[in-house]
Amino acid sequence: MMNVPLTVGSLLERAEKFFPKKQVVSRTLSGIHRFTYKEIGERTRRLASALEKLGVEKGDRVGTFAWNHHRHLEVYFAAPGMGAVLHTINIRLSPEHVSYIINHAEDKVLLVDEDLVPLIERSKDQFKTVEAYIIMTDKDELPETTLEPVYSYEELLREGSPEFEFVKDLDENDPAGMCYTSATTGNPKGVVYSHRGIVLHSFAFGLADTAALSETDVVLPVVPMFHANAWGLPFAATWFGSTQVLPGPLFTPKLLADLIEQEKVTFTAGVPTIWLGLLNELEKGSYDTSSLRSIVCGGSAAPRGMIKAFETKYKIPFLHAYGMTETTPLATVSRLKSYQVGLEEDEILDIRSKQGLLVPGLEMKVIGGNGEVKWDGEEMGELLLRGPWIADEYYKDERSADAFRDGWLYTGDVATVDEEGVIKLVDRTKDLIKSGGEWISSVDLENALMAHEAVFEASVVAVPHQQWQERPIACVVLKEQYRGKVDKQEILEFIAPQFAKWWLPDDVVFMEEIPKTSVGKFLKRALRDQLKDHLVQNS
Amino acid sequence: MMNVPLTVGSLLERAEKFFPKKQVVSRTLSGIHRFTYKEIGERTRRLASALEKLGVEKGDRVGTFAWNHHRHLEVYFAAPGMGAVLHTINIRLSPEHVSYIINHAEDKVLLVDEDLVPLIERSKDQFKTVEAYIIMTDKDELPETTLEPVYSYEELLREGSPEFEFVKDLDENDPAGMCYTSATTGNPKGVVYSHRGIVLHSFAFGLADTAALSETDVVLPVVPMFHANAWGLPFAATWFGSTQVLPGPLFTPKLLADLIEQEKVTFTAGVPTIWLGLLNELEKGSYDTSSLRSIVCGGSAAPRGMIKAFETKYKIPFLHAYGMTETTPLATVSRLKSYQVGLEEDEILDIRSKQGLLVPGLEMKVIGGNGEVKWDGEEMGELLLRGPWIADEYYKDERSADAFRDGWLYTGDVATVDEEGVIKLVDRTKDLIKSGGEWISSVDLENALMAHEAVFEASVVAVPHQQWQERPIACVVLKEQYRGKVDKQEILEFIAPQFAKWWLPDDVVFMEEIPKTSVGKFLKRALRDQLKDHLVQNS
Repeated sequence: MMNVPLTVGSLLERAEKFFPKKQVVSRTLSGIHRFTYKEIGERTRRLASALEKLGVEKGDRVGTFAWNHHRHLEVYFAAPGMGAVLHTINIRLSPEHVSYIINHAEDKVLLVDEDLVPLIERSKDQFKTVEAYIIMTDKDELPETTLEPVYSYEELLREGSPEFEFVKDLDENDPAGMCYTSATTGNPKGVVYSHRGIVLHSFAFGLADTAALSETDVVLPVVPMFHANAWGLPFAATWFGSTQVLPGPLFTPKLLADLIEQEKVTFTAGVPTIWLGLLNELEKGSYDTSSLRSIVCGGSAAPRGMIKAFETKYKIPFLHAYGMTETTPLATVSRLKSYQVGLEEDEILDIRSKQGLLVPGLEMKVIGGNGEVKWDGEEMGELLLRGPWIADEYYKDERSADAFRDGWLYTGDVATVDEEGVIKLVDRTKDLIKSGGEWISSVDLENALMAHEAVFEASVVAVPHQQWQERPIACVVLKEQYRGKVDKQEILEFIAPQFAKWWLPDDVVFMEEIPKTSVGKFLKRALRDQLKDHLVQNS
Repeated sequence: MMNVPLTVGSLLERAEKFFPKKQVVSRTLSGIHRFTYKEIGERTRRLASALEKLGVEKGDRVGTFAWNHHRHLEVYFAAPGMGAVLHTINIRLSPEHVSYIINHAEDKVLLVDEDLVPLIERSKDQFKTVEAYIIMTDKDELPETTLEPVYSYEELLREGSPEFEFVKDLDENDPAGMCYTSATTGNPKGVVYSHRGIVLHSFAFGLADTAALSETDVVLPVVPMFHANAWGLPFAATWFGSTQVLPGPLFTPKLLADLIEQEKVTFTAGVPTIWLGLLNELEKGSYDTSSLRSIVCGGSAAPRGMIKAFETKYKIPFLHAYGMTETTPLATVSRLKSYQVGLEEDEILDIRSKQGLLVPGLEMKVIGGNGEVKWDGEEMGELLLRGPWIADEYYKDERSADAFRDGWLYTGDVATVDEEGVIKLVDRTKDLIKSGGEWISSVDLENALMAHEAVFEASVVAVPHQQWQERPIACVVLKEQYRGKVDKQEILEFIAPQFAKWWLPDDVVFMEEIPKTSVGKFLKRALRDQLKDHLVQNS
């Protein structure tokens, strides 16, 4: 067979050739703009040519600090198309982490959204490698800025050549992109995506049994383009010639609902909080969402009630998926097998609430205390992944040795596998409670606690115990009107029927508030610190 | 990203793990048999282990001479799974060609269907490398045979180990399969398929915008497993966990119609003559074909009338596709683009009659007299293909230099490309008529001629001409009842409105019969020889 490398540039070329009339709908600060793939292709080539003039060479990192819009999409293809590396930077990181990853990745050029310039300005003095800033704006004049040297994106395009040829003779294992993922402690860790990985992942995304992405789709990636390649959607949607709707800066649930109705969106993807917001908006207003054939939900587990509301009340098929920055990211998708279609609604909802089946092209293992777990939906173990779009290291980072071992990625996620091979995430390894040689899922206990009408929030953590090594303690925040009216006993009795006796928390600690991370996740490390002597004191 | 090779063995492993209960329905001489993927996986491992005991090593060729059934499927995975090479042999070849390709491929072991043993016996004395014959039969006793040493497939399986591990550490560019394709003159030419090529082709087959093959499908490959990997269906269908229905030896249109009804087939694939036969059968009998979601048709151009009958009369979506042995084989699929769905029935039929759009992952060029042709649906040129599942040579064959040049496969097919990038095959390069620097399609003229009610068969060939270099001559066989009642003039006037004047044949030669090849195609070479002085004599 021909030795033809899989390259990111070829994805855009297909859209230019076969779908020149199809559109990218882009919302920026000045409103909605429409570009055909012919235009996007030409603009991307102009950008690559301009970057080359600025001194960007093969292998150099090109940073982006931007929302989801057409210019960001152009950088997605211009950087890898010229053999450079697209480095998408999370705009929500602390100034310290922004400086750290820009220096660690050694970004040569930084493309920044007009409204995000102040965020970059406050870190810029720390940057050691950035040689040029390019501001992405619809306006003719650049905003006042202390960044320098500074260029206007559109002016560079005017000077660039629309005939720029994407490099073809590269090694498909060469880097095409990179993204940093937060660590529990310390600095973010970098993941490098190869051309091969991105193209194979795009194939996987188009399969009938995964996301079935198609030319007929109108795709709205709500997941940010600065996070895990917006789950690979910009690459796959361009390749297949789908219409793309990029929601731009600071969107609201109302804006998303409007876009879905006006642009007849068929396929959208984001995290559970986005869909909770949309659900709330759909209940307030009156929107036509009949064009939607799939809402993809990942990032964290989707609540069963939310899935049910979308599927039964709004008739919008819900596709629960799982992946991480290290996995490009698609790893599993929850779909019914052909012989499950006739099951009862409740059973179907059970399946849809799990993370699903491994996508073709990857391998998995779930390793518990005694090797690979039984596929019984009960035994828990850490999920290990392997395959051509799974990272094999963190970029120049000693922490690689923890996560990448014997050719496998140790995801840090604890899962069960049912008889059908479907995985369900039950915890993070570090949050799991190891009691007397057995494992207890903090997530399962939390879900049960939060089903109590008086409970506003609940977090369960492991606390050291002399006899059992660790035991669970429940931290509970009651709703205002219930404070002082509900006691430990009632809470424990409420959840008792759902669990083996040894799973039940040894204590319930009522709190005013549960400490949280900057992105709103429970800060279990702080709780564990706070409670580390709790069972010693109490015993 | 991890350096994980794409391997054929991993495709079956996915079916074993995630779809162990799904079935392969296999028709053999003794009737219908059902095997789960768990059983197929175990039997395949036993077979690989048995082949190893027989001395098959990495890189050795394992020949098959067989119909479509479960045992053939097992060899499809056992040979590449152990690092050997699956060599499928066309059972319709002449004894000379069978000997040639077995010797040229240097097959070490030959697996032969019970009813095909006599065909092998008549060539066996010529075989130089075959060390063992394995007979595939349902019976306990082997048939009387002069083949030796000879083994029973099922007995070998009983002795093989179900624990055999497929090799994982191979180079994905290593050969996994091979197939010989007929040449116009001389011996067949060998095409070698790599593990990488087969896996990428399987990805392409599962895309929503190509064949969208899925676990929910019940797949009936009518295209023989001895021809271009049955278009890759056994690999892709196994990977995705589709149910497979393998129709076995000497099937009839009635048998196919029965299988479609009884097994609720959703997806089937074959050449136009198969579908003409099925259409005829559907018109005679009463069959429930409502399960069918796709009939894939390739191998040669599907007549417009047949496509229309399936689509409008039987409501069976028809998927016209194109490929060749050298392209693994899927290269194009004819599907409507999203904005074409509202077109008139006739326009839709026009699109469906073309060979379609290039599948993601491949590149194409159409080269005419003046470089790349205009995408106007008019200008003709030779189709060139490039990509990771396109062959880069014929196996140990000097004729490679003609077909593989500058990194492209010269397909020998002449095509037009319309404004949407959709290709339509109009001729073979060698059958095209080059008149005064312009090209005339023999196929277009033949289709027009055959639409005349008096015409039974028509073939148009190029004949040397002093002034114009070549001119078309039409060879026409009239239906019995019209013989002597229709003249040249009437025939030419009938087709005249459809063509530019200079396209019209210089003469119409009535014949009793048009000479044909062993597989029923017009033998145009013979016609050209016969008519080479026709325009000299007539002028």
